[in-house]
Amino acid sequence: MPEIATLLKRRARLLGPNMTTFYDNPVHIVRGDGAWLWDADGHRFLDCYNNVPHVGHAHPKVVEAITRQAATLNTHTRYLHEGILDYAERLTDTMQHDLETLIMVCTGSEANDIALRMGRAVTGKTGIVCTDNTYHGNTDLVSHLSAKKTPIGGAVDWVKKVPSPDTLAPLGGSVDAQPQAFADEIQKAIDALEAEGHGFGTLILCPFFANEGFPDLPKGFLDPTVEVVRRAGGVIIADEVQPGFGRTGRNFWGHDRIGLAPDIVTMGKPMGNGHPVAAVVTRPEIMAEFRTRFGYFNTFGGNPVSAAAAMAVLDVLEDEGLVENARDTGDYTLGLLKELDHPMIADIRGAGMFLGVEFAKDGDTQAAAAFCAQTVEGMRERGVLLHSVGRHYHGIKIRPPMCFDKAQADVLVETLSATLKALPA
Amino acid sequence: MPEIATLLKRRARLLGPNMTTFYDNPVHIVRGDGAWLWDADGHRFLDCYNNVPHVGHAHPKVVEAITRQAATLNTHTRYLHEGILDYAERLTDTMQHDLETLIMVCTGSEANDIALRMGRAVTGKTGIVCTDNTYHGNTDLVSHLSAKKTPIGGAVDWVKKVPSPDTLAPLGGSVDAQPQAFADEIQKAIDALEAEGHGFGTLILCPFFANEGFPDLPKGFLDPTVEVVRRAGGVIIADEVQPGFGRTGRNFWGHDRIGLAPDIVTMGKPMGNGHPVAAVVTRPEIMAEFRTRFGYFNTFGGNPVSAAAAMAVLDVLEDEGLVENARDTGDYTLGLLKELDHPMIADIRGAGMFLGVEFAKDGDTQAAAAFCAQTVEGMRERGVLLHSVGRHYHGIKIRPPMCFDKAQADVLVETLSATLKALPA
Repeated sequence: MPEIATLLKRRARLLGPNMTTFYDNPVHIVRGDGAWLWDADGHRFLDCYNNVPHVGHAHPKVVEAITRQAATLNTHTRYLHEGILDYAERLTDTMQHDLETLIMVCTGSEANDIALRMGRAVTGKTGIVCTDNTYHGNTDLVSHLSAKKTPIGGAVDWVKKVPSPDTLAPLGGSVDAQPQAFADEIQKAIDALEAEGHGFGTLILCPFFANEGFPDLPKGFLDPTVEVVRRAGGVIIADEVQPGFGRTGRNFWGHDRIGLAPDIVTMGKPMGNGHPVAAVVTRPEIMAEFRTRFGYFNTFGGNPVSAAAAMAVLDVLEDEGLVENARDTGDYTLGLLKELDHPMIADIRGAGMFLGVEFAKDGDTQAAAAFCAQTVEGMRERGVLLHSVGRHYHGIKIRPPMCFDKAQADVLVETLSATLKALPA
Repeated sequence: MPEIATLLKRRARLLGPNMTTFYDNPVHIVRGDGAWLWDADGHRFLDCYNNVPHVGHAHPKVVEAITRQAATLNTHTRYLHEGILDYAERLTDTMQHDLETLIMVCTGSEANDIALRMGRAVTGKTGIVCTDNTYHGNTDLVSHLSAKKTPIGGAVDWVKKVPSPDTLAPLGGSVDAQPQAFADEIQKAIDALEAEGHGFGTLILCPFFANEGFPDLPKGFLDPTVEVVRRAGGVIIADEVQPGFGRTGRNFWGHDRIGLAPDIVTMGKPMGNGHPVAAVVTRPEIMAEFRTRFGYFNTFGGNPVSAAAAMAVLDVLEDEGLVENARDTGDYTLGLLKELDHPMIADIRGAGMFLGVEFAKDGDTQAAAAFCAQTVEGMRERGVLLHSVGRHYHGIKIRPPMCFDKAQADVLVETLSATLKALPA
């Protein structure tokens, strides 16, 4: 087996510089099964981070669906095929709010690139509002929303970023004041876009605020925000790439969890268990406006193999009761995490298979960033893979495949306990 | 089996309006093998159009590679994996011009979206030049290059479109004058971009001018263009989505066929035989500039399954001698086509598995559009699938899987002969 150093050198030569690897001591994974991964030396890792293999690494039913369809036919949507239609029906059946029409694409970035243009098409306005600690993808258009990566060409003035909601430092000074305070920030952004002549068209957000550190927010949190957006004539995109497909355990979609009726929903990563498939779902009149104005066609989007992979994911979620498992194992894991005792722990929260521990040093979250990084590395050395989240990467994100079980939760929390104990506070 | 009308109704309801289908009488394809396709009623069609199933529909070696890797592991490039590195080495070995570094993505649109930003990153200029009858993809940025689809938000003034080279009506009035005349048009576009303050950064073109109707152009055709671009400090993107991977029979890449040394090469459709995989290849210093400035990461891009699918395509091309087959069967097919005799035929041309017949009525190509559409429909009714190309969709495009053989060429040309005979001139 090639050594890590050799692989890193080949990577730099063939893929260029600045290619992030997780961990100071990168892992060379060669095999996966359920929530387990194995590296080239045969070491086993518990995967507590990857949401793409949603129903478990190398799930045999998804592999079988891909194989069967790939061995039969893989074409595009200019020929008729029932695969995309059956999937569209099944997927939109999980949604309310007249979200009944679908475009299938290959990545969440492509989905958000379309969704933002739908917003432009129906409102005629170019202005976009997002939070100041988010990520929605990497096309030229979507990259302008990124908090942590400067887009090529620099920032644009038709994107306004509002402060993210926060658990430890709520907007407006208190948890109760936060819903209106967040809406007030959005109103300010809208006013600025209107004053500068762009006009306000679209609010895009992850309804779980995943990259923002998934603060605990009550159902109805976004009600004042929706009022502000509706009054301004804007549309709302719910980016479900992270909370979608049942991850939060009690709702299939993050927007239902928070009580939001979005105009457009985007999804990606977990949709095909690793197969490159993503989608935009919207109301028929928005779809009609976009399709009539633009005539979008995506060669690979909604091909029979992608539709089969995505359908298999829905089948497995149902057959194996994985949303219920996310709820039960999530509750169990959260309970275990809450028994942890360490002076750097500032909060423990999350839902279903999306949990986290936020660190702070004497209330200072930025001061906890190094500690958090050491925790992530310590877990990796002990065979548990997770990663950091939050404005200063000062919290750990636990987001395992949906088949994660209670025995694995025990391993996770025992390992975290040992890792925290071994670190200086 | 559901009737066509029912499928069309479901499509409109679930996918929205304005979803193009090929043919007045759309085909409902359910199975493919090599260059053959079957519809739901068991009718067989000869596929003379699809370049995505590059090595043949449902090729068992590609299916096997996908299955084996999907059943083992599918993660992303933040973990180390040899799949993408082995592929990067193998792919860049097919190229010269110091094109040695790779970004893998999922669609040609994503590839061109990155390539255009690379151009911006290294030149610091936003101006782009493309031809006036092209298509490079459908992200917000790339959609501004489309000749036939107005982008959402309308046209932008930092994209300038130059007249496409043409066989029947060459720029500058003659085939000999055309290379310099094309370069002169590009110089005018550059001057306009500089005068308007955008500056000129990037020329993007398909080196086979596929959407432009693939005019017959001599090797060296782009030499005057390259001189103009270099003098202005710009970079050149060769979009190899159509001519790449040996399609033209005598060169693995379209840019080598025309004698162009591009700065950036993009590729997509045929790369994974239908699996959603695409790529950008460039020189190390351009890659470094882009990656350092932006830090691009694509969750699905270069995952182990996509790399395995793409590698299998290269294996099959080699094992089955498909580039040589494209050359030999291409020459044979072109010879047969040239024996066709019909007053509407204005030109017959192409290379390898990329051939076409251009129609005109008394020298007027626009007047031949309806005739061409009838030809396409007539072929479909006779069991041969192909489609139209050119400024007025006035020519037929023959672009079958690379395994197309001489017996299939006989079927194609006999059917075309019968179709043309049945049509009024």
